[in-house]
Amino acid sequence: MHNSKYQNVIQALDACAAACNHCAAACLNEEDVKMMKRCIMLDMDCAAICKETAAALARGSEMATIFLQTCAAICDACGEECGKHEHDHCKACAEACRRCAEACRSAA
Amino acid sequence: MHNSKYQNVIQALDACAAACNHCAAACLNEEDVKMMKRCIMLDMDCAAICKETAAALARGSEMATIFLQTCAAICDACGEECGKHEHDHCKACAEACRRCAEACRSAA
Amino acid sequence: MHNSKYQNVIQALDACAAACNHCAAACLNEEDVKMMKRCIMLDMDCAAICKETAAALARGSEMATIFLQTCAAICDACGEECGKHEHDHCKACAEACRRCAEACRSAA
Amino acid sequence: MHNSKYQNVIQALDACAAACNHCAAACLNEEDVKMMKRCIMLDMDCAAICKETAAALARGSEMATIFLQTCAAICDACGEECGKHEHDHCKACAEACRRCAEACRSAA
Repeated sequence: MHNSKYQNVIQALDACAAACNHCAAACLNEEDVKMMKRCIMLDMDCAAICKETAAALARGSEMATIFLQTCAAICDACGEECGKHEHDHCKACAEACRRCAEACRSAA
Repeated sequence: MHNSKYQNVIQALDACAAACNHCAAACLNEEDVKMMKRCIMLDMDCAAICKETAAALARGSEMATIFLQTCAAICDACGEECGKHEHDHCKACAEACRRCAEACRSAA
Repeated sequence: MHNSKYQNVIQALDACAAACNHCAAACLNEEDVKMMKRCIMLDMDCAAICKETAAALARGSEMATIFLQTCAAICDACGEECGKHEHDHCKACAEACRRCAEACRSAA
Repeated sequence: MHNSKYQNVIQALDACAAACNHCAAACLNEEDVKMMKRCIMLDMDCAAICKETAAALARGSEMATIFLQTCAAICDACGEECGKHEHDHCKACAEACRRCAEACRSAA
């Protein structure tokens, strides 16, 4: 089956990108939006690298390892920041980042 | 729950992007690679618009409808081309494009 | 020479993407960040479609026209919103959006 | 002025992404397309990371350094492969990759 080697990590990457994009927009609607600035900024970085890492894996790129390592590091930073906030979207995003970082490191 | 309105279409978009990226790379490995040129080109367009449409939906963008309409049109073109070829990755991609176009039109 | 047909519009697209990404981040640093929410959201949409339109043009994609039309519409929306604000980054972004929409329509 | 710190590297990144996208499509039109497979694959990786690195820099992301380092490594790989081929688009791409890698390392 197609992409079998990387199917699980692609799913984790897509889920993390969606969680980050959702979290960024939801943070903008929070009362304490000033406190969410770093969260929004890291959400944008994390969504971007997750999507490109998923694409590289789906292509079977020889650059897969460096994409995975970079993605794991950015997921760590984003998940750590999201984990500081009590909003549901931040908690969901922190968990998605944690799973994605783990999946990236397993696959790298 | 997060992204609930668009969860199904985001999944169809992510699946289509992965199928397109996989198909583009697999086409490059085929014996008849010259015949696959248009397929590879449309795979790249389709993967790109699927990825950005998924991101726009996850953000709850007010531009969602135009992303969805554009994505459906590009999925149509890519799926039609993939459907002309007998390679498994092309058939899988044609099916992913068909489902994605349908999901985009339902959501638009 | 490479990309000659589309060189000017690719430059306008890249300039617009950079202005949108810069504006989104700068808006997050403003005192009146709540007022900037729609500006930030549209900046994200506009940066995304500009980058993918530039990529499609550089590839000489047969889908160029639909990318250009979609991009022009999103540039219009983003530029209109940015034009409502007095911050320098918003004014610069509004101007980049206006030029980019015009370049897209000329090329489409 | 906006993005001033990173203006030069953003221009090098945008130029490299355009050269890679153009090279990928032009390689598909060559007679010896089978020989160009690795070039096309690396062009796709390089265009993707250049685009996201430019976006991260324009946002003033705190993740800029890791994006720049990853981008430089992928530009090295892509530029080395492009440098093996005599097609004008490959030579232009090799040169764009070399300049971009250098700009990324200076900025990191």
